[in-house]
Amino acid sequence: MMNQILVGSRINYTVNSPTTFLLNISVAQNEHQSTTNESIEIYPYHKVEECAVGPLGNRLLRMTADPGELTIQYQATVELRASEVDSTDLCEVDYENLPADVLSFLNPSRYCESDKLYRFAGEEFGQLVPGYSRVTAICNWTYEHLTYTPGSTGPTTTACDVLLQRTGVCRDYAHVAISLCRAMGIPARYVSGYAVKLQPPDFHGFFEAYLSGEWFLFDATRLAPVGGFVRIGTGRDAADVAFATLRGDAQSTGMEVWANGQDANDHLLDPENVVTAVSSA
Amino acid sequence: MMNQILVGSRINYTVNSPTTFLLNISVAQNEHQSTTNESIEIYPYHKVEECAVGPLGNRLLRMTADPGELTIQYQATVELRASEVDSTDLCEVDYENLPADVLSFLNPSRYCESDKLYRFAGEEFGQLVPGYSRVTAICNWTYEHLTYTPGSTGPTTTACDVLLQRTGVCRDYAHVAISLCRAMGIPARYVSGYAVKLQPPDFHGFFEAYLSGEWFLFDATRLAPVGGFVRIGTGRDAADVAFATLRGDAQSTGMEVWANGQDANDHLLDPENVVTAVSSA
Amino acid sequence: MMNQILVGSRINYTVNSPTTFLLNISVAQNEHQSTTNESIEIYPYHKVEECAVGPLGNRLLRMTADPGELTIQYQATVELRASEVDSTDLCEVDYENLPADVLSFLNPSRYCESDKLYRFAGEEFGQLVPGYSRVTAICNWTYEHLTYTPGSTGPTTTACDVLLQRTGVCRDYAHVAISLCRAMGIPARYVSGYAVKLQPPDFHGFFEAYLSGEWFLFDATRLAPVGGFVRIGTGRDAADVAFATLRGDAQSTGMEVWANGQDANDHLLDPENVVTAVSSA
Amino acid sequence: MMNQILVGSRINYTVNSPTTFLLNISVAQNEHQSTTNESIEIYPYHKVEECAVGPLGNRLLRMTADPGELTIQYQATVELRASEVDSTDLCEVDYENLPADVLSFLNPSRYCESDKLYRFAGEEFGQLVPGYSRVTAICNWTYEHLTYTPGSTGPTTTACDVLLQRTGVCRDYAHVAISLCRAMGIPARYVSGYAVKLQPPDFHGFFEAYLSGEWFLFDATRLAPVGGFVRIGTGRDAADVAFATLRGDAQSTGMEVWANGQDANDHLLDPENVVTAVSSA
Repeated sequence: MMNQILVGSRINYTVNSPTTFLLNISVAQNEHQSTTNESIEIYPYHKVEECAVGPLGNRLLRMTADPGELTIQYQATVELRASEVDSTDLCEVDYENLPADVLSFLNPSRYCESDKLYRFAGEEFGQLVPGYSRVTAICNWTYEHLTYTPGSTGPTTTACDVLLQRTGVCRDYAHVAISLCRAMGIPARYVSGYAVKLQPPDFHGFFEAYLSGEWFLFDATRLAPVGGFVRIGTGRDAADVAFATLRGDAQSTGMEVWANGQDANDHLLDPENVVTAVSSA
Repeated sequence: MMNQILVGSRINYTVNSPTTFLLNISVAQNEHQSTTNESIEIYPYHKVEECAVGPLGNRLLRMTADPGELTIQYQATVELRASEVDSTDLCEVDYENLPADVLSFLNPSRYCESDKLYRFAGEEFGQLVPGYSRVTAICNWTYEHLTYTPGSTGPTTTACDVLLQRTGVCRDYAHVAISLCRAMGIPARYVSGYAVKLQPPDFHGFFEAYLSGEWFLFDATRLAPVGGFVRIGTGRDAADVAFATLRGDAQSTGMEVWANGQDANDHLLDPENVVTAVSSA
Repeated sequence: MMNQILVGSRINYTVNSPTTFLLNISVAQNEHQSTTNESIEIYPYHKVEECAVGPLGNRLLRMTADPGELTIQYQATVELRASEVDSTDLCEVDYENLPADVLSFLNPSRYCESDKLYRFAGEEFGQLVPGYSRVTAICNWTYEHLTYTPGSTGPTTTACDVLLQRTGVCRDYAHVAISLCRAMGIPARYVSGYAVKLQPPDFHGFFEAYLSGEWFLFDATRLAPVGGFVRIGTGRDAADVAFATLRGDAQSTGMEVWANGQDANDHLLDPENVVTAVSSA
Repeated sequence: MMNQILVGSRINYTVNSPTTFLLNISVAQNEHQSTTNESIEIYPYHKVEECAVGPLGNRLLRMTADPGELTIQYQATVELRASEVDSTDLCEVDYENLPADVLSFLNPSRYCESDKLYRFAGEEFGQLVPGYSRVTAICNWTYEHLTYTPGSTGPTTTACDVLLQRTGVCRDYAHVAISLCRAMGIPARYVSGYAVKLQPPDFHGFFEAYLSGEWFLFDATRLAPVGGFVRIGTGRDAADVAFATLRGDAQSTGMEVWANGQDANDHLLDPENVVTAVSSA
């Protein structure tokens, strides 16, 4: 399966004093996606350093901007090479067989307090058949119990907050599902990205669960087809993959994000396609 | 400087059903410490797998135990090769110059909600001279505002909880200091270890801050000299370096920990020695 | 309906320095229950002041004890005169018709954060027929989603904590049910009391909801029959009706509680009796 | 001392469906303040019920409005008859001597988790001389450690949240000070009101502490002179004295509040007057 997608983002700032920007908007590089025609443009010109972080393929851009108006534009053509697998074959991996580098994705993290939810998760999902379908059940529960409400949560909102208030945005849906997976013993991690067909266009947050020795993409929001997700960053939760972190004094004055599939008929972009699982990373 | 320390731990369990253990009690291997005569003994015999996790040098032991009484004993002789540096020369590193692999230690984590404490930290420590002395000021504040009370906190207690209740144990002191460092823009991470002269002998939790391009050890509890700390695990907070994680049904029935300095006169073990900083990892 | 119950409690303390005790262990006096043969005994003798608090009928005992061993024993024979009503006739009262002195029992309180649970409650109970059966549905939900686990919660645990951890004791069950009632617009308040057939015998915590112009007793724990509840204190939540509040230095060294129905065949003490509602206060 | 103040408020709503309003905007009636020329006007006309709640003198207005534009205007001329007392004579009352109806103002409440702050309060204020000056010290601490930032908190924000984030508005300042007073054993309660010289004009939130057998007004915000406070509602915290509670579907479209002292030279309105305490209710 191959799928070519044009993604990009443009962010405007008013910089009031010299400000260091750390941007995580570049498409990650791994065996499942590759980029051509990638560009990063800064108006007015500023030197940008690219630094890669860790084994997860995250690519950070860092620069220090002078006072004034600033525009940052990123663009790339991405080829996705996701494997399709029959999801009914995907199993949860026993604790004694989990690879060492996967274990940390069972730990609770800032916005995913899985350590508080063992009984909650066990009660709701403990009787289900382990495997891909159980992660899907967690996504369905999340979808059915939350209402998607822009502005209902903030930067310090956690999965536990959302489980009580029952409303949130994409990052909150991902945090809830990740927390419930970890509480069930299923490693799970947060992914930020571009998403074809997301309305309105924006950066997106979703997650991966570890099954049968690979990471598979999930999205409890049902806002866009998983087959059209282009990975930017991977982390424990949203704390690890902020699109922009600033030190200094600057305000964002506008943002535009786009992600256009070149092959509109690609069946992986069909939201009804729930039979095949999409592997990643 | 060289310093030889005999460390070890013995943990007893009653195992009720087959239980998988993940143990993080082995001494980490890095350029600042090396082990000789290392042994891990399991009574009755069970096969143990050692798996190394990530670039931080953590070493995990994993095994699945049969029902019955179980004893796990670890022992090693450790040579510490900490550098001593004049702490007055140690600087905070500007955000634009922090190495990519250090950046994640500025992020909030499960037990260190630094994202909620920017104003708190800025108010208390924002006027101080940056550098080693500011991290020391954070340790002093933590020491002076908390009371060390065994049993006053539990596995889900966070730095924010402790800042309100003003009492905790070593892991809580570390979480508070780490959170305040991160909120000030100073990368900080949690370290578990053995500690010479700790009374009563136990595993210990302390932390590291990143200054002048290296990680330096700190301990806000003042319970044992930093020069006698032997590193076991390094992580974002205690969630990453639990001594034992169990899946199954087993109860701990006893634990013994020891850490004996071979050279009692080593000046790094002198608690009054606050002039020199001890680098690590 | 008349029902005679012998209730009592004996609490032992070691008093280390002069300590003021505020005790809320006396049976409340209202039109639905009256006492005979009531006694309060203090060994060794101390003068006790009884002060009544507010319109809810709570009776507080206050005394200042000298250092030494102290025993406090309360006993009374209580006649319950609960009305029995066909629960199918009981309605929720419209907001515009609630009496002024009932309105405050819609407000969130320390352990009942109903203001965080509007959507949660609406989602789970919003489609149900209003009235007694909806409060019963809230009790059933609470019973089915929590596990009764002595020691799983503490004095600062709130309804929101319990909704996440899914475990608690009687006071926590009451707090959860009260919070969900208030979030649905049903006034609800906490009641402490003696309870016939409670095993092991102890003080009990339950709650009341306001329906059709009266307060009706409910207990989400199903640990004892509502018809055998003898009211001690009424309040917004457990913060208002602590059995003992101490200022000074004393430790509790033992406690015994009893509540024996004189007429074991009373049908109100039949736990299967769920057709009739029991009014109160 | 007598002081005449003209207070009022005008609130506009767009009512989308029949909505029941509970308004707590009328001036409380007690021995320290009396009203003349009081009026409540509703445009278009709706019948309003006034219901008095409890012994605290709160006066609630209740009405059910039809869809359409709605304006509610309240106005009164108030005579304040506050006593002035030399604050150096005001003592904290021993626990054993507190009147029964004052005891509940030592309990923790929804936004004032004093039960979590015993050690915090003891550490910061435990060494101070008891009395009026200790409550003043609590106000000063609150003023010095918080930053007044409109919009920084919301309806579910508690004193503990504010103690960590160190920012809030008048209700948050009051909640923090109340919590710290209660944690020190000093009864404290929340007061809403009109405030002369408050800029910009708005409803105000402050608090009272119980000293020497009376309630005295305090305001940790220093935004307006205590001598110009006109009481509306009294409660455990802001949960009890919301200006408007709505059931239905209506949006507030504007609000105006005024409070004008008739005697600008009244020395109680002088913010520099910190020698005399102002008693209340």
